[in-house]
Amino acid sequence: MRTLTRAERAQLAMVLEVSAYPKPGNVDRCHDYPNTRLEHFLASSILARPALEAAERGEGGVGTLIHRAVECTSGYSGGNTHFGAFILLIPLVMGDSIDGASKVIATTTVDDAVEFYHAFGKTEVRVIEKHELDVHDPDSIAALRSRGMNLYDVLLYSAPRDMVAREWINGFQMTRRGADLLHAAGCGRDAIVEAFLGLLALEPDTFIVKKHGPDTAWRTMEKAREVREGLRDLQAFDQECIDKGINPGSIADIIIASLYIALGEGWQWDC
Amino acid sequence: MRTLTRAERAQLAMVLEVSAYPKPGNVDRCHDYPNTRLEHFLASSILARPALEAAERGEGGVGTLIHRAVECTSGYSGGNTHFGAFILLIPLVMGDSIDGASKVIATTTVDDAVEFYHAFGKTEVRVIEKHELDVHDPDSIAALRSRGMNLYDVLLYSAPRDMVAREWINGFQMTRRGADLLHAAGCGRDAIVEAFLGLLALEPDTFIVKKHGPDTAWRTMEKAREVREGLRDLQAFDQECIDKGINPGSIADIIIASLYIALGEGWQWDC
Repeated sequence: MRTLTRAERAQLAMVLEVSAYPKPGNVDRCHDYPNTRLEHFLASSILARPALEAAERGEGGVGTLIHRAVECTSGYSGGNTHFGAFILLIPLVMGDSIDGASKVIATTTVDDAVEFYHAFGKTEVRVIEKHELDVHDPDSIAALRSRGMNLYDVLLYSAPRDMVAREWINGFQMTRRGADLLHAAGCGRDAIVEAFLGLLALEPDTFIVKKHGPDTAWRTMEKAREVREGLRDLQAFDQECIDKGINPGSIADIIIASLYIALGEGWQWDC
Repeated sequence: MRTLTRAERAQLAMVLEVSAYPKPGNVDRCHDYPNTRLEHFLASSILARPALEAAERGEGGVGTLIHRAVECTSGYSGGNTHFGAFILLIPLVMGDSIDGASKVIATTTVDDAVEFYHAFGKTEVRVIEKHELDVHDPDSIAALRSRGMNLYDVLLYSAPRDMVAREWINGFQMTRRGADLLHAAGCGRDAIVEAFLGLLALEPDTFIVKKHGPDTAWRTMEKAREVREGLRDLQAFDQECIDKGINPGSIADIIIASLYIALGEGWQWDC
């Protein structure tokens, strides 16, 4: 068996995440949303390759590479599928590990922040509020430059409201936790579901907060705990989330990063 | 929207084929076989990339590149997933079209045949009978050389019993037909199911012949026709095939080639 490149490992993480089933509320092999379907995630996993390979070769700053990943995968229906995942995968692929990614993150520049804003502007990512640094406002770019904000600063600014941004700030804590859950759960796809539930039970998903408010996100976290404790049926919980459009999209992004790390540590997807 | 490379188009064809549902008897987004599951096909689609890119760059003969594709994707559980698809995709990617692939096929060498036998030996592909050129017999390689058989000759020898080999001999007729069915059916995944059923209704699948005999293959073809005529329920037909292990694996290989061609002609997977 050959050693996978980092880019391949990232792509494998993306297809394994979306096909794992049942993942409460999210697109998986048995569930689509009307406008975002399994094939959108699979195609995005294929199409992101040039950006992931450039990240592996260290060609370009982290902001440019996130922007490139968005460009590689945009222009199709399905909206933003992997933007949050790219925010985590690009530094992880650049740095090859959480430690390496932390070094990438520690040296981001204002140009990285500007590129990130350009990338952000090309997605349809839900923002919690119209705040002063609106990605669709050209003045925001000028503001980034005049304040000397680098990409770390931008994600620090978002961290209280966005658990993906928070991974940059806290040294990929949930990513690490997800990888540990994968190792603990054993090989194969059932482990992905277990790790997903484990993270969902840990903290309220900030994507749900943005879409449905903090109470729904909190209640979803509690229900995930009940599933883990055997007090609630997983399939019924999944269906309830799907019916209400409650999709823990940020946890999905983080699980992709966890899969990337775990695969690099020898976790087996096939068993 | 950027133009896909040929390798990306081939990978996209592989993930679209396996995720399309319901495909009677085959692995799809809602069905696995115990030892061959959705994730095996998705991983193989990711892992085949170096061989597909080498084919796009024209690095190596068609036999070497098929061998390389098998090597890139082997070493995992799940068995042979895409061997038949590689036999079609590698020349199509090398030649960029059916015409170009036909030129590749017209100039194969004995070395191509030898490499193909090495690749074949690494798969668990079902053979109809123990015939004189057994891929597991080292003497077969010597026989290829002493007879001066090139890869075209080898596939000509298999063509009566194998519809994938037949594509090499007859100018990719079913591949072309599948692409035409995709265009006729419109965009998106439902078109893949229609094209799949269309090919299944056209000729008995030779993979089914090898596994279950010609009568079962013929009856499966007739049932596909009845589904197309509205006389039989598609989901029930799918379930019946799955229950009996009747999987039209060769048609699946050909549909991947059809998707590759159709995508290159502007067929839209997302709608």
